[in-house]
Amino acid sequence: MTNRYPAVAYSITIRAEYPNRPGMLGKIASAVGKMGGDIGGIDIVDSTRQRIVRDITINARDVAHGQEIAARVRVLRGVKVLNVSDPTFLMHLRGKIEVHPKVSVMTRNEMSWAYLPGPLRVAQAIYEDPQLAWRFTSKANSVAVVTDGSAVLGLGNIGPAAAMPVMEGKAMLFREMGGVNAWPLCLATQDVDEIVDTVKRIAPTFGGINLEDISAPRCFLIEERLQEELDIPVMHDDQHCAAVVVLAGLYNSMKVVDKRLEDLKVVICGAGAAGVGTGRLLMEAGVRQIIGYDVEGTLHRGLNLESNVGKKWFAEKTNPSDFRGDLRGCLEGADVFIGLSGANVLTPEHLKVMNRDAIVFALANPDPEISPEEAAPYVRIMATGRSDYPNQVNNALCFPGFFRGLLDTRARRVNTEMKMAAARAIADAVPSGQLNEEYIMPSIFDGNVARSVAREVASAAHRTGVARRLRRGRVQDAPNQASGS
Amino acid sequence: MTNRYPAVAYSITIRAEYPNRPGMLGKIASAVGKMGGDIGGIDIVDSTRQRIVRDITINARDVAHGQEIAARVRVLRGVKVLNVSDPTFLMHLRGKIEVHPKVSVMTRNEMSWAYLPGPLRVAQAIYEDPQLAWRFTSKANSVAVVTDGSAVLGLGNIGPAAAMPVMEGKAMLFREMGGVNAWPLCLATQDVDEIVDTVKRIAPTFGGINLEDISAPRCFLIEERLQEELDIPVMHDDQHCAAVVVLAGLYNSMKVVDKRLEDLKVVICGAGAAGVGTGRLLMEAGVRQIIGYDVEGTLHRGLNLESNVGKKWFAEKTNPSDFRGDLRGCLEGADVFIGLSGANVLTPEHLKVMNRDAIVFALANPDPEISPEEAAPYVRIMATGRSDYPNQVNNALCFPGFFRGLLDTRARRVNTEMKMAAARAIADAVPSGQLNEEYIMPSIFDGNVARSVAREVASAAHRTGVARRLRRGRVQDAPNQASGS
Repeated sequence: MTNRYPAVAYSITIRAEYPNRPGMLGKIASAVGKMGGDIGGIDIVDSTRQRIVRDITINARDVAHGQEIAARVRVLRGVKVLNVSDPTFLMHLRGKIEVHPKVSVMTRNEMSWAYLPGPLRVAQAIYEDPQLAWRFTSKANSVAVVTDGSAVLGLGNIGPAAAMPVMEGKAMLFREMGGVNAWPLCLATQDVDEIVDTVKRIAPTFGGINLEDISAPRCFLIEERLQEELDIPVMHDDQHCAAVVVLAGLYNSMKVVDKRLEDLKVVICGAGAAGVGTGRLLMEAGVRQIIGYDVEGTLHRGLNLESNVGKKWFAEKTNPSDFRGDLRGCLEGADVFIGLSGANVLTPEHLKVMNRDAIVFALANPDPEISPEEAAPYVRIMATGRSDYPNQVNNALCFPGFFRGLLDTRARRVNTEMKMAAARAIADAVPSGQLNEEYIMPSIFDGNVARSVAREVASAAHRTGVARRLRRGRVQDAPNQASGS
Repeated sequence: MTNRYPAVAYSITIRAEYPNRPGMLGKIASAVGKMGGDIGGIDIVDSTRQRIVRDITINARDVAHGQEIAARVRVLRGVKVLNVSDPTFLMHLRGKIEVHPKVSVMTRNEMSWAYLPGPLRVAQAIYEDPQLAWRFTSKANSVAVVTDGSAVLGLGNIGPAAAMPVMEGKAMLFREMGGVNAWPLCLATQDVDEIVDTVKRIAPTFGGINLEDISAPRCFLIEERLQEELDIPVMHDDQHCAAVVVLAGLYNSMKVVDKRLEDLKVVICGAGAAGVGTGRLLMEAGVRQIIGYDVEGTLHRGLNLESNVGKKWFAEKTNPSDFRGDLRGCLEGADVFIGLSGANVLTPEHLKVMNRDAIVFALANPDPEISPEEAAPYVRIMATGRSDYPNQVNNALCFPGFFRGLLDTRARRVNTEMKMAAARAIADAVPSGQLNEEYIMPSIFDGNVARSVAREVASAAHRTGVARRLRRGRVQDAPNQASGS
């Protein structure tokens, strides 16, 4: 992973001591600037008339660049580097999430209600009517974020322990954007049967299951079996949230370029979880002509893909003309390229053969299939997965609101209607008057997105008959409506 | 479950509307008082010159008693009962615990550090050195509270969904008293192998496993196998925390009655999880003469107890004289009775045959083996599991501090030294100058108890070589010591 520009994720904090006289800080700042570092905050740690100690936080392009900058500061005359630390690691100390009581248990009365014996009465009531678990336990608002660490973004199969920081980040956004309790469960197995069994057994505690970073094709089997066997919604984020945000981007792109989904030729590069999820949802949404491309080349009926249900789906259900050429061939006359693969698989030569008003979603992260700068001359709409370019296609636009809607309706399962409704809600979050080539996706900091996605998913849950909770707002939870018997 | 006296856990809130004139509230209060109800808070909901609406919260003895009180208020002339609600259930609405981020993710920089791509760097570091998971993830401070709902206090085998309110209560105390993240996992299986497999698979996320309310004898096998196969501490609360708090109470009782553990004759009634855990720990602590008693009668070598490893342990390892009589016979000359069984198994006749300065821990909950009132004439020290009598023997004195100590040292396992150290710490929390027959246990609201238990458990972890973290206070977590590489 490397960045073209200095980034916060690669910042370092240099604690430097130097003589307390004018010009010294400027000397350090100049040295950092010449090295290409970008100075952020500067704090005073300690100061006397003779000496001053400062913490200087500097954005670097990558880890090596940060080390080079620190090395440069170390050799400045008069400057003593006391310590170099890394804000990214510091903010991860002892993890990023915590479990807290909703109410205090610090008096005898509170203890009596919340610890013993109060909960025993609630337990008895749930035993007599299991549906009350939705009303009187955290199941109502909790999602398990389940991974086996087999397909972590940009890192691959790093296993459960190393996947934890990523899952915790997810859990943070679940709370901040969706008001959902999300607890990570990083599993010490990569066996399909064992994952399915484990998730089934921990399910009573949760109102939904968010599968995360599980590699294809196992992810398809795991999700399908779990959704079949559990009565709570199961969603593999990598497949479906990716699909939802891509569809949202396409909805808005259609308005900008004045085309219809039905008329598009779409090339999807990367037939992993996200590629397959996206291909499937686009077809449901009306796209007729899709071609999938992966390491085997164009996915067509002549390939033996029995071992991979995802790629097999592409070969059988898409590519209606059974095209068998290369990527450039796929792209001839294509309206849309959707990259869910890896860095730099696309060149300007590829883009030149696309249809007018070409749309390129180069979503590989952190480095896209082609940089926006290179693509610019050949495309009308360009989107990436990155926050430092326009049109960020980010799963975080989807999952917090999506699960909020599932939980609010106590939905039994996830379905296509919900995904299409969520995509529409995300697309509609861009004000129509402001829609343009560089603004097809709403900001992930727009709090209305999650609320709107939640409302539309809930509405779809009711429409499709998978909601268990009657549609009557929040009245059901109003204090004077609750009763123990 | 019923109480002799009105209790907060059985309170009701009556919302009543009546003419706004003097004497009306007195009329209601009198009626409630005559019914034996105990009025708590009274709030005004709405008031005009003509009418007033009030919420009147009343402690009752049990659910039926609350309903009787409400029925009586309903028929008071001029009083209209708008609603009767139950504070215990209200405070359980949508559960009692929440997951929250430790730091904000509401700006682009924070997102970059905490969501993407920051965590990928931390993930990579943990992949290269798995021990860093202890430093940079919530594993460092998280415990799974695992149950199958097979032996919930006072309710028995109510299954996973119904066990949830009890586990959430536990999780609340873990945070409030120990500063520990505890997340409940209520398992949809009661099969020993399946429970063991499931816990092993979810273990990477956690720094410790707290088994809870799993019935004997399965609990012994499950705990033993998990502790064998996992490299994090596994503790079955019902066995070991019960044992620790009982031993703490005995330590202090010995001072009051001036006896020695080595000289005691102890009868343990109830050879379930708590009974076996307690019997084992007391032997380790020096008690030589223990007799176990359960539904089979006195547990002796002549019984066929192959199907229950717990009872078999009692029959083989305790009862040195192989006594085979009834409970009264067991108690002849006994110094200590420890009840971990059920309500009212003991009568004054039983107590009369005990040794001088008899010590009775009647810990069945909510109704003890014998009421303190009945026992009073025959015992020197009386303890129960209840908060409304002196000497409450409560597991909550143990588990928050115990796991705090385990996590602080990254202990690999739980051992007897830790349990004895924890018992000593709890006992020592009662100031020696204040120790007396009615004050052998510290208050569960004494914040020093958990801190002291944590310190002593940590010290024992170091002493016994199961600590993975060097003993250097919290310096390791100081910001300028952390670094990404």
